[in-house]
Amino acid sequence: MRHNLIEPGDNEDITNERRNASFSVGKLAVFIHGGEEKLRRRHEILKFVESQEDLQDPIPPEFMSRMERVENNARKVVAMTDKLSFIDQADIFEEGPLFQSLIMGRDFHAMSLHYVMFIPAIQGQANDDQLDYWLPLAINRGIIGTYAQTELGHGTNISKLETTATYDEKTDEFVLHTPSISATKWWSGGLGKSSNYAIVPAQLIINGSNKGLHMFMVQLRHLDTHMPLPGITIGDIGPKMGIPGNDNGFLIFNNYRIPRKNMFMRYSQVLSNGEYIAPKHSKLRYGTMVFVRSVMVREQTMQLAAAVTIAVRYSAIRRQGEWKSGCKEVQILDYRTQQYRIFPYLAQSFVFLFAAIEVKDLYMKVNAQLAKGITEFLQELHVLSSGLKAVVTWEVAKGIEQCRLACGGHGFSLASALPEIYSFAVAGCTYEGENIVMLLQVARFLMKTVKEIRSSSARLAAIAKYLLDDRKYKSNFRVWHMVKYEDLIEDFEQVTRNQIYSTFDYLQQLQKDNHSPEEAWNCASVELCQASRLHILCFMAKSYFSRIALCSEPEIIRILDLIGKLYLLHAISITHANIVKDDYMSDEQMKNIKCGIYEILGKLRPDAVAIVDSFDFSDRELHSVLGRRDGNVYAAMLEWAKHSELNKTEVLSTFEKYLGPMMKCGRSKI
Amino acid sequence: MRHNLIEPGDNEDITNERRNASFSVGKLAVFIHGGEEKLRRRHEILKFVESQEDLQDPIPPEFMSRMERVENNARKVVAMTDKLSFIDQADIFEEGPLFQSLIMGRDFHAMSLHYVMFIPAIQGQANDDQLDYWLPLAINRGIIGTYAQTELGHGTNISKLETTATYDEKTDEFVLHTPSISATKWWSGGLGKSSNYAIVPAQLIINGSNKGLHMFMVQLRHLDTHMPLPGITIGDIGPKMGIPGNDNGFLIFNNYRIPRKNMFMRYSQVLSNGEYIAPKHSKLRYGTMVFVRSVMVREQTMQLAAAVTIAVRYSAIRRQGEWKSGCKEVQILDYRTQQYRIFPYLAQSFVFLFAAIEVKDLYMKVNAQLAKGITEFLQELHVLSSGLKAVVTWEVAKGIEQCRLACGGHGFSLASALPEIYSFAVAGCTYEGENIVMLLQVARFLMKTVKEIRSSSARLAAIAKYLLDDRKYKSNFRVWHMVKYEDLIEDFEQVTRNQIYSTFDYLQQLQKDNHSPEEAWNCASVELCQASRLHILCFMAKSYFSRIALCSEPEIIRILDLIGKLYLLHAISITHANIVKDDYMSDEQMKNIKCGIYEILGKLRPDAVAIVDSFDFSDRELHSVLGRRDGNVYAAMLEWAKHSELNKTEVLSTFEKYLGPMMKCGRSKI
Repeated sequence: MRHNLIEPGDNEDITNERRNASFSVGKLAVFIHGGEEKLRRRHEILKFVESQEDLQDPIPPEFMSRMERVENNARKVVAMTDKLSFIDQADIFEEGPLFQSLIMGRDFHAMSLHYVMFIPAIQGQANDDQLDYWLPLAINRGIIGTYAQTELGHGTNISKLETTATYDEKTDEFVLHTPSISATKWWSGGLGKSSNYAIVPAQLIINGSNKGLHMFMVQLRHLDTHMPLPGITIGDIGPKMGIPGNDNGFLIFNNYRIPRKNMFMRYSQVLSNGEYIAPKHSKLRYGTMVFVRSVMVREQTMQLAAAVTIAVRYSAIRRQGEWKSGCKEVQILDYRTQQYRIFPYLAQSFVFLFAAIEVKDLYMKVNAQLAKGITEFLQELHVLSSGLKAVVTWEVAKGIEQCRLACGGHGFSLASALPEIYSFAVAGCTYEGENIVMLLQVARFLMKTVKEIRSSSARLAAIAKYLLDDRKYKSNFRVWHMVKYEDLIEDFEQVTRNQIYSTFDYLQQLQKDNHSPEEAWNCASVELCQASRLHILCFMAKSYFSRIALCSEPEIIRILDLIGKLYLLHAISITHANIVKDDYMSDEQMKNIKCGIYEILGKLRPDAVAIVDSFDFSDRELHSVLGRRDGNVYAAMLEWAKHSELNKTEVLSTFEKYLGPMMKCGRSKI
Repeated sequence: MRHNLIEPGDNEDITNERRNASFSVGKLAVFIHGGEEKLRRRHEILKFVESQEDLQDPIPPEFMSRMERVENNARKVVAMTDKLSFIDQADIFEEGPLFQSLIMGRDFHAMSLHYVMFIPAIQGQANDDQLDYWLPLAINRGIIGTYAQTELGHGTNISKLETTATYDEKTDEFVLHTPSISATKWWSGGLGKSSNYAIVPAQLIINGSNKGLHMFMVQLRHLDTHMPLPGITIGDIGPKMGIPGNDNGFLIFNNYRIPRKNMFMRYSQVLSNGEYIAPKHSKLRYGTMVFVRSVMVREQTMQLAAAVTIAVRYSAIRRQGEWKSGCKEVQILDYRTQQYRIFPYLAQSFVFLFAAIEVKDLYMKVNAQLAKGITEFLQELHVLSSGLKAVVTWEVAKGIEQCRLACGGHGFSLASALPEIYSFAVAGCTYEGENIVMLLQVARFLMKTVKEIRSSSARLAAIAKYLLDDRKYKSNFRVWHMVKYEDLIEDFEQVTRNQIYSTFDYLQQLQKDNHSPEEAWNCASVELCQASRLHILCFMAKSYFSRIALCSEPEIIRILDLIGKLYLLHAISITHANIVKDDYMSDEQMKNIKCGIYEILGKLRPDAVAIVDSFDFSDRELHSVLGRRDGNVYAAMLEWAKHSELNKTEVLSTFEKYLGPMMKCGRSKI
């Protein structure tokens, strides 16, 4: 790799940053991405995508109307899926997402859910006969499918979905029906215009008896004409905060009939005589959600890393304000406030990326076990992926928005890409399980664990072992540069334990005060969420330090160590409430925690550009005028603006129609 | 006023909420808006706007392309300004903004800066001759003007703007020039396509000597053809995160000549022989910025109030999850987590709205004084408006986004209006003075004050008096329902004093450790910002309680008291670091602060819908399907979606061109 990305013609400030870095970007990039081979593949995939004419955009997509984006995405998704063999399709954590993001940018497309939900649901829910029939059709792109679960009035609590599938023994069919407006299927990606099939969860009704939610394969549109079939009303749900190129859709059934064999029958079955055979293992149904949440941790973090990269690079070339008159203006990266806005999220990017590896490993293990019918680690994966999903998506969203604000006015322009990154990422707080709901699920696990510990019957999962530890009476923390990370982790564990135990006690107290368990849970729910949040942040700190223990390059270890400590000090400082409880830390120690943060910011400052360079984003992947590798931002912004549809003519029709006559009349009065 | 907004046909849940409210919405609305007459005028203006055919949108603007929005806004702005006589144009704090928002929604238009910057700048900077010439032209809409200050490479530090205006004695002209790409004027509203004039701040150069920044009246386009004049390159800067209907523009001068008399000469002058006469009162230049920031406090808060209204109403009709099986699902407003997300911002809406009245009063006073050349309170207004602008815009942005997230998936849809409200409001963190810069200006004032106190030479402004107070050794706080608000304010003052004094000490320490004053200031800047933030939040708490002391209705006082206490407890709890310092509060007290928050949330719950109803938003002003008065959300969403351009045909061209052939080929392989 060329030395730290420097090229002739680059902006002088950014070149100086790279020249003065204390370490090799190549080495850190190799460590981040898990080896030289992985990094080589990243570059190979980029080169391939750039070489394919049909994978390019005619103009930057942010200048397209919604319809133009939908068109452009449909064109590209066909070309992209024609070329899937170039990547390792089994690599759903790295090569797959990279390939897609290089082509589709931060948007969904006609087949997003086809690959992420439709095919996995077939694999998970179909019996052998169904698998043989549907899977080849889906994989060969003979149909486009989506997954239509959410309804207008029903999201998280899927047991209350209203759509019904009533078995009609006479015709051996199910009758799908939307009994009310709130039962309208709503939100599914690609449902509005692109898909001709959907997997639809609906209440299975047999002889008037509700057997609960089951999944059905439903044809929506005619294969040749693509017209909606009789009994189906379907359309686009209108514009959203992000993903303009996707036709998220609605779907209404009017007594729409499908064959009995279209109910997925791997776990439960309906026989032709209407006999219902219930599933044996209800747990096996977690599958798709857990899969998506696991993948989300890394994908979301890459969005944060992208935002941090843009903000750091731009802050290196942006100069504003003077410390000494007569000197050049200051690089805004030199402002402590700017560092404080961005660097804690730089640290989180690293910590979250390494946590993503843990989830991936666990996911692979669980997946291999599930194939053999073993469900041992499924709950652990479920808790971990739910918690990580909630904490990571929220921290990522906050971080991206801070990075955007740190870029001042230009962060508000779509040229920065930051508004798009934010819209794309923040949606993750809501989909695949609303974050508060996820946190409360983790809290259930934590409260159960404490209860078991208190009753001495605990057989603790590895990630909860620290809840057993004896508490130290006082923190050993003095000043940041003398502290070992093990000690900081102990401090953070203390914060977390405090929150978890005090929440448990609060719950108990509420119940003693005559609240029902449900009421008590609700009254304590803000604290419960905070307990889960800390638990997950703490877990990630631990997994980060065990990961960087694998690094053997001293120059890189130094950087990773600073980053990890910044993460921990910052996390501790913003959860101050628990760390000073029982005088665990003194005012003086807390002051030193904060001073530690400010000093580490200063230490990281000279390497900041090199650190973000190590994420190895190409200009294509970043798609940001502010975040360009070469730092030549201003000229590029002017070029970018020329694409504006308003600039196609010097004078808009608004002048002739409205503004011109108004001004002429106004001048005539004077 | 009809009883608490109930009408037949409304959603049953929302009607029940209104029926069960403990107070009269009409009374609280009157108090919020400052009297019955004000409220009557709000309704009168709404009715007028609704009655005018040319002020309506053909379709909801969120379904328009950018060009369509620009067109529609140009049409509406002419119609709107034709009818200005219907409102009290001098009322820039209430009637003006309301009228505009009812017509233009949350977007800017061709003449936004004409009214907010161009005309005020003429009034502030022109001498009498210039005033006589330019003001009638501008007021009669004979020209459209904007204000072109920001450059691609220069924002806050205006002294380093690069654009030059060089005096040419031979022709008695100034030569305007853009010496580099980074000097390109950038961002000004309406500059790209609409305006034919701009006021341009540029470095005044006479005989090679730079006299600093001065303002120039510059014609940009031909009055009849609207073509850019020779020497002017001008255009739209491309799409942004919000305000799609505005043509924010760029502007490049190529040795463009304007007459000498086009320099504004109220304070400084250039004579025809090139002699330069410097201004006497540099302070008088603050004018426009202070004006805009003062207006922003209320306008931004109204956006937060709108978001809170939408979130509360939607949470009342949205049901999800069960506490007891077999019962109806729970209104999500019943979840403590949901209340915790929304109600603290409900409280902030009230507190900020009342703070806006203070700024308004101060602004009016200063304005009246300035007319007589008195500048006594200008600095106080400057500090206060800067601080309020920074704190309010940031809290508002956070709050809106929390409200949006609290609406789950539907908050992501433009049907909710929340994405638009967020984009519109969050821009306020950046424009008219970047928030961090604003906070550091307030911090300068605070540090100067502490220094004066320490040297016993303090003559304190009213808003800084509390810095002198003797500190109590311990807080008296026990439990929230026994506390008087005066005590809570004392506690919050303690938090704030702690932060201000410890920051001052930190600054001193850094200087003792051999940092230069500039370095020390930079190292302490995160703490300095925090000091300013607390100072402003504390100021607002005090002004809130002095405002509600004017209320004489017991049923309203009860609500306002709960709201104020929630604001204070929440503010104290999230600034925990300072409140426990020196053992000012114990662990037990802190626990009770938090319990207090949770209990007040429960107390406010039954009145939440009635409280937001009291903001008196019409459906037109909210423009949100989720926030509709009648609560009939789901049917309205389905109706709304039908406007989607993707729904104009059942089958998009994407099927024939791309997806159809792909699927046909895929099926042929099986």
